[in-house]
Amino acid sequence: MNPEEFRTAAHELVDWIADYRLRAEGGGFPVRSRLAPGDVAALLPDRLPEDTTTISGLVADLERIVVPGLTHTQHPSNFAWFPANASLASVLGDFASSGLGAIGLSWQSAPALTEVEQVVLDWLRQLSGLSDAWRGTIHDTASTACLVALLVARERASGLSKEGGGLQSSVAPLVVYASAEAHSSVAKAALLAGFGRKNLRLVALDPTSYAMDVSALESAIRQDLSRGRVPAAVVATVGTTASTAIDPIRDIAGVARQHGSYLHVDAAMAGSALLLPEYRHLFDGVEAADSLTWNPHKWMGTVLDTSLFYVRDPAMLEQVMSTNPSYLASSADGTAVQYRDWGIPLGRRFRALKLLFQLRLDGIEVIRERLRRDLSNANWLAAAVSSEPGWRVVAPVPLQTVCVRHEPTGLSGEELDRHTLAWTEEVNTGGQAHLTTAILGGRYMTRVSIGAEPTERRHVEALWRLMRAVADRTASGTRSSGRSGSSGGRAPRRARSRRAR
Amino acid sequence: MNPEEFRTAAHELVDWIADYRLRAEGGGFPVRSRLAPGDVAALLPDRLPEDTTTISGLVADLERIVVPGLTHTQHPSNFAWFPANASLASVLGDFASSGLGAIGLSWQSAPALTEVEQVVLDWLRQLSGLSDAWRGTIHDTASTACLVALLVARERASGLSKEGGGLQSSVAPLVVYASAEAHSSVAKAALLAGFGRKNLRLVALDPTSYAMDVSALESAIRQDLSRGRVPAAVVATVGTTASTAIDPIRDIAGVARQHGSYLHVDAAMAGSALLLPEYRHLFDGVEAADSLTWNPHKWMGTVLDTSLFYVRDPAMLEQVMSTNPSYLASSADGTAVQYRDWGIPLGRRFRALKLLFQLRLDGIEVIRERLRRDLSNANWLAAAVSSEPGWRVVAPVPLQTVCVRHEPTGLSGEELDRHTLAWTEEVNTGGQAHLTTAILGGRYMTRVSIGAEPTERRHVEALWRLMRAVADRTASGTRSSGRSGSSGGRAPRRARSRRAR
Repeated sequence: MNPEEFRTAAHELVDWIADYRLRAEGGGFPVRSRLAPGDVAALLPDRLPEDTTTISGLVADLERIVVPGLTHTQHPSNFAWFPANASLASVLGDFASSGLGAIGLSWQSAPALTEVEQVVLDWLRQLSGLSDAWRGTIHDTASTACLVALLVARERASGLSKEGGGLQSSVAPLVVYASAEAHSSVAKAALLAGFGRKNLRLVALDPTSYAMDVSALESAIRQDLSRGRVPAAVVATVGTTASTAIDPIRDIAGVARQHGSYLHVDAAMAGSALLLPEYRHLFDGVEAADSLTWNPHKWMGTVLDTSLFYVRDPAMLEQVMSTNPSYLASSADGTAVQYRDWGIPLGRRFRALKLLFQLRLDGIEVIRERLRRDLSNANWLAAAVSSEPGWRVVAPVPLQTVCVRHEPTGLSGEELDRHTLAWTEEVNTGGQAHLTTAILGGRYMTRVSIGAEPTERRHVEALWRLMRAVADRTASGTRSSGRSGSSGGRAPRRARSRRAR
Repeated sequence: MNPEEFRTAAHELVDWIADYRLRAEGGGFPVRSRLAPGDVAALLPDRLPEDTTTISGLVADLERIVVPGLTHTQHPSNFAWFPANASLASVLGDFASSGLGAIGLSWQSAPALTEVEQVVLDWLRQLSGLSDAWRGTIHDTASTACLVALLVARERASGLSKEGGGLQSSVAPLVVYASAEAHSSVAKAALLAGFGRKNLRLVALDPTSYAMDVSALESAIRQDLSRGRVPAAVVATVGTTASTAIDPIRDIAGVARQHGSYLHVDAAMAGSALLLPEYRHLFDGVEAADSLTWNPHKWMGTVLDTSLFYVRDPAMLEQVMSTNPSYLASSADGTAVQYRDWGIPLGRRFRALKLLFQLRLDGIEVIRERLRRDLSNANWLAAAVSSEPGWRVVAPVPLQTVCVRHEPTGLSGEELDRHTLAWTEEVNTGGQAHLTTAILGGRYMTRVSIGAEPTERRHVEALWRLMRAVADRTASGTRSSGRSGSSGGRAPRRARSRRAR
């Protein structure tokens, strides 16, 4: 495809994308895809067709095959997982990135790619109220950022063991600490970094806030020290995935400092709240951390994959991650930052353009207004649920996620879990809204994560009416037909195609 | 930005991108950016401006600040590093991905994202002549793919040590083997995975092919075994970075199998040659490997980041990488593939659309024709260089990279190195073409990596004329002014801005 063919095709695609967004934002689809595993694959040919197609043909395929297979993040009644991927300004930035075709291997391979990233990350540092002791880069996700942080922690605690026998030669076992509500990627990162599950402590929670119990952290560390183990790293979470619980960073940092532990703060979802001065108290103490991650691709709405990773000691990071092969040497070495030495991949996209476009076209005040709107909607919903008999808000609501449970008289334990799963699945199957569930304090609850770009108060009000109607109906069904009538949401459906393995 | 504002802005951006590509393909820029470290940053404000801008304003900024800070991958005289990021059809696929805003957390979060990836990876498997024993996914880069491969190898060799004390409890040291010409990311992956540099063997090379010497591999393994170490993994490279040397996979696989070692094949650059049946002999034995990576974002021209990762035992991969938190549970669990368990990041972009668009719009035959054109151009250049007195092709040319050295009478050793660096830098400074250098067999040489999409024979011919003229001129300068006249290409320039650290 030459540039002129591209021009024609791209104009056609622009209109389709704009129309798709209009339809999604207008609620023109069931929020959650209604397809079963294998349905999409069954519509695609087994092998690449010999004939090529046109952009019109391809757009028709997207419409027929892909759109029904999407769970629409920009539907105004999407309350699932987390708000994400909204900003059309950032879509343009990403398009410019692909169109320019720059490739970040070294500073020399695309100077602007490196320097725009430095500058925009510095803008976001200022907008987040962080001191100028921080330097930032972009990773794909907070999972990767956490892995990088734990690798740096591992090397710091082991005196750069990678240059010797690696973790295989380390004498005293290194231990990682995180709250029992930390994201699954923290445990994954600890395991991938080689610490081993036996050296991962999931610290007990404060039973009402679901945040890390700092005294439990302290006693876990003391117990490990008494057995000759080394507290290498602590991961604190601001805004846990299930309930947006806020680990007390200042207290945790005090403990970490006392024992020489590396402190990583995972604020993947909640980090966008740093943009609001009135919410920065949730991050009190963050300046004492070694690294901090937050994802503009979540609540701030930048297109995936945009995870910010700030560190206070770039030299240590580079010492752990750097390579310097002759085929990448250039005259800029030593004077320019080499972002390949700040993360895992060598080749990097020009991801800073997504942020540049969003910040310069939408502007920070529009972003802040939207965040405040979502926080206000969450407060409204929490108040409404709290005042409704038979319903309960089961966790504090520091941000935009409201964790609720419908607790009809007489239901408890696993029966209550089945009810929670059943009514939530019923809402999702209906297609008018999308919610997710999670276990908190040993019981299932329903998460209402508010913040898709088009979500206004009226959508939250409509959701609340829907939740009550569906939950009541499900509860009546459960009572009238007994346990077997509660089909729940977990019965695995059979795949319809050989491809869905 | 709402969808209608997006529509207007996107149409404007489309035209700018098309025009940029026309200019780049027409050779309208110096290939390598002429900026010094800090130049781009110095043009950007220190903090986010309070006013927002329009797409026209932003495009003007791109033109003024970003374009001069690019090394233009689509310039027809770009022979640096590797050809990449060309296909405008794949740019459209990437744009569709961002526009749809799908987010891959689980199958349920975007069924089409998972299933299109499965199907398109299967198409590419067939087009690559691989058996149906392989299952594929997309990672960002071959660096990440190699890290994942070595993590699986580590866990296989240690009996899933991650579930116990990790590498910290492993008894016999695990060792990784790769050729001395393996990409720097292989050593980086081994170090990040915790093996330690002491347990990484960079196996000696065959002195003429620069491929791994299999007998050296065998004796390294035997020596390690005799000292109680475990040969956990071998990484074979098809197409090394410096010279596209081809490690003999079949022989290496025999050795790996004998000792129960995991075998990963890194064909990041050369993997595109799998699309040409007449070049598959370079991959002879690949069916005996455990994993294989090749990057369509290199020679095939798909937009970064598109690194294919094929494995023969997805269950083992999932055992190493999986997490299963309650907040991601869905009724599709157990029946659908969960790609989060095939790699490091949890959240994934809809990257398969880049491949779908390129394959369906450009078609495989157009891609194959382009690859064959590049191979023919490389053969032509190699023949021309070989027959020119004072010039030498210093490595075999199995693919599209030609490694050359200008060896004027009387220059050798470090003096010759300085000459190589000097004339190559002189070519690059001139802006008419872009070449890179690397060390091979202890001496610098110049790499001519052919395959930017607009690169035709005439551009290679012009390059060859330019190389001779510049190298001759540089050599005369060196002879007339002595050593001090050879400034080389490595003198670090001072940064012009505080930001370039």
